[in-house]
Amino acid sequence: MQYPSKWIEEAVNQIAHLPGIGKKTALRLVLHLLKKDKVFTEALVNSLTNLKEKTQYCEECGNISDANRCAVCISHRRDHSVICVVEDTRDVLAIENTGQYNGVYHVIGGVISPMNGIGPEDLSIDKLLNRVKTHDEVKEIILALSPTMEGDTTAFYISRKLDSNLKISTIARGIPVGGELEYADEITLGRSILSRTSYTSE
Amino acid sequence: MQYPSKWIEEAVNQIAHLPGIGKKTALRLVLHLLKKDKVFTEALVNSLTNLKEKTQYCEECGNISDANRCAVCISHRRDHSVICVVEDTRDVLAIENTGQYNGVYHVIGGVISPMNGIGPEDLSIDKLLNRVKTHDEVKEIILALSPTMEGDTTAFYISRKLDSNLKISTIARGIPVGGELEYADEITLGRSILSRTSYTSE
Repeated sequence: MQYPSKWIEEAVNQIAHLPGIGKKTALRLVLHLLKKDKVFTEALVNSLTNLKEKTQYCEECGNISDANRCAVCISHRRDHSVICVVEDTRDVLAIENTGQYNGVYHVIGGVISPMNGIGPEDLSIDKLLNRVKTHDEVKEIILALSPTMEGDTTAFYISRKLDSNLKISTIARGIPVGGELEYADEITLGRSILSRTSYTSE
Repeated sequence: MQYPSKWIEEAVNQIAHLPGIGKKTALRLVLHLLKKDKVFTEALVNSLTNLKEKTQYCEECGNISDANRCAVCISHRRDHSVICVVEDTRDVLAIENTGQYNGVYHVIGGVISPMNGIGPEDLSIDKLLNRVKTHDEVKEIILALSPTMEGDTTAFYISRKLDSNLKISTIARGIPVGGELEYADEITLGRSILSRTSYTSE
């Protein structure tokens, strides 16, 4: 496409590098920015600059944080004896939003995937093992990884590396709340029967 | 939602102000930026800053431009006797991409819409009338506005204000190329019969 200005072209190309945004959407965003006040673009630009310059990774759990250690890791209200192992920050956000978890996290940054050239050494697994070793208070590790081949492999790898005295658990797989049995796939339904829990009327 | 960093929250809020982007998509973009190199965000930020600081509106036609006058307006290869009146830059881009038009443009910046408080004085219509008056070479005005109530009103308003010596035309309405008759709405189909053109085997 021929753009009326090279600055539009450059901005469209940069925005189209973002995931899920093509050139048409990028152009729509660019024209929106051109229509809006300068203040609007400045606020956007500042927020992106701050995002990259002022955030860091928590030294302890690897989550994104404003300081050396994140709010969860420095909190005395959290149960530091339980560590939930997740792939990335989005998973931490998702679990935090349930309001059902009071332990701490460890973000490993992905899953083992030989297809994509990601081995155990590319993830923050050694750091997790060290953390468990140096912190005697840790009693349980919850493996909350994706229920995919790669996720399962990673969970297996971690479980083998961990001290056998630790309690190792994984999040329950089963029929989603509100889900209908007939639409569930066989593997999920099969697992939900195998890992049935005792019935309690709440 | 509770974000792990206030900078993430700020960036998410700013990005979610863009049209068609909600907080979930904004968060996905933010996490993508955090994962990527700093250079990536810097390039994006620079392109947005340049976009706002270095582009301007063409003095003559109102299109976005790198200089005082846009590439179309200063070109000697374009036919300056025909002015195509469009709503915004996106329409100019769309027409330019057809490669079928060799005249110049006039971007009026919207359509008359009393519902949204937009009157003729908010659009660049006076500028168009002046332009026609001061440039004797102009022979034809093509009204290429949206086929909506507002677009038709605006076209009517402009046609009444223009000198009656000018040829005033509008883009053809009809069945899209490749479109099937049975799926066309009655108004479009009716117009396509009324404005039938003589058959030429190309």
